[in-house]
Amino acid sequence: MNIRIGYGIDYHQLVEGRDLFIGGIKIPHNKGALGHSDADVLLHAICDALLGAAALGDIGVHFPDTSNEFKDIDSKILLAKTKTLIEAEGYKVINIDSTLCLEAPKVKPYVPQMQETIANILGITAKEVSIKATTTEKMGFVGRKEGLVAHAVVLIWKFGN
Amino acid sequence: MNIRIGYGIDYHQLVEGRDLFIGGIKIPHNKGALGHSDADVLLHAICDALLGAAALGDIGVHFPDTSNEFKDIDSKILLAKTKTLIEAEGYKVINIDSTLCLEAPKVKPYVPQMQETIANILGITAKEVSIKATTTEKMGFVGRKEGLVAHAVVLIWKFGN
Amino acid sequence: MNIRIGYGIDYHQLVEGRDLFIGGIKIPHNKGALGHSDADVLLHAICDALLGAAALGDIGVHFPDTSNEFKDIDSKILLAKTKTLIEAEGYKVINIDSTLCLEAPKVKPYVPQMQETIANILGITAKEVSIKATTTEKMGFVGRKEGLVAHAVVLIWKFGN
Ligand SMILES: [Zn+2]
Ligand SMILES: [Zn+2]
Ligand SMILES: [Zn+2]
Repeated sequence: MNIRIGYGIDYHQLVEGRDLFIGGIKIPHNKGALGHSDADVLLHAICDALLGAAALGDIGVHFPDTSNEFKDIDSKILLAKTKTLIEAEGYKVINIDSTLCLEAPKVKPYVPQMQETIANILGITAKEVSIKATTTEKMGFVGRKEGLVAHAVVLIWKFGN
Repeated sequence: MNIRIGYGIDYHQLVEGRDLFIGGIKIPHNKGALGHSDADVLLHAICDALLGAAALGDIGVHFPDTSNEFKDIDSKILLAKTKTLIEAEGYKVINIDSTLCLEAPKVKPYVPQMQETIANILGITAKEVSIKATTTEKMGFVGRKEGLVAHAVVLIWKFGN
Repeated sequence: MNIRIGYGIDYHQLVEGRDLFIGGIKIPHNKGALGHSDADVLLHAICDALLGAAALGDIGVHFPDTSNEFKDIDSKILLAKTKTLIEAEGYKVINIDSTLCLEAPKVKPYVPQMQETIANILGITAKEVSIKATTTEKMGFVGRKEGLVAHAVVLIWKFGN
């Protein structure tokens, strides 16, 4: 069968003195995500899910956090590069479903803009990019607002048998 | 392709003085899940997975925990409403696989009844609703019995191209 | 539709005095995973995803950690038994995508050997078995190197309607 599944998970600490980028959007908040790149937890989870579906390794293989090339990079560029990688194998995205686990800020108002941003990069429609959000009910490092986590699942397919 | 993937995750604290509902079943235990509704972690994860697969937002969008309408509500009603929402888009459920992460109580004896309950609401067979359980090996808030987590993945499809 | 989705998650503590088995490979490290079997977190997550996809219960149902039969068992045997179980229902594996969440050691050098090992047991190619790895950015029990977690998603299918 020429349909494949992928799953990605990504973690970042939330710290003062950083901007908060989620789903390609800069979100006003008193903390930002710590990382080598812009630390966009949602785009990273989606990249990893797409790479995993195509069995192309992971985000750390393609965009190592030890490389100056990716220092403070806009993760939208990483998503575009990921698209190129999976298309080179003949794959197209069927749909993406993702979940943000974070205590604050409220991201709901930004979801449509995130969907549009991701869909535009991947050449699909916003309806193919679901973004959900939940708290962890104050439990764990997410509940203590020390960090945030994103999960993404994807289906991809290629023509042929 | 008219097949789509969804993933849902849900968290609840375990506290004394609450009943414990999982998978639509009341389970005898010295603690229950804390929440605005009946706090059924498994039904919520499944609702979110179904909504995500259909790109219809998330459980917080449709059943806000700030609304009196959903105070202490039986989450089986939320699952039935979710079914209505995805069917309005033409989708049918292919299968659901879910995992409960909790240290106690043992839920295995209740799994067949949970499967029947969920399947009946969704108009599918128990064989289309897998429910698994694991501990977190005493680690984290789940391991300390402070809370429980459920994961659910789904495939849905609609006729046509 | 005769395609089905599964998801598995597994947790193990990391402790001194145990060997570390991940993906069927013994990895040099100062700690190993604690468990009744060889505690191979990746193979367990994959077994659970496959069993879940086929709605055959979970790893705890088939290989209980209270049974002497499975004490210190090589989890490659559990994966082979899982293959037999899903094949008895007529299912074949389409693809597997998995993610290891651990702070140390670096597992990247072992990934190709893990892929080959898992693919050989399941009778598929290494390209059908994706293995990714991430840290949790020093957060939580994984970040404190107290334990490790594996996630796996699978698609399986059977011929017919
Ligand atoms: Zn990241
Ligand atoms: Zn809930
Ligand atoms: Zn295990």
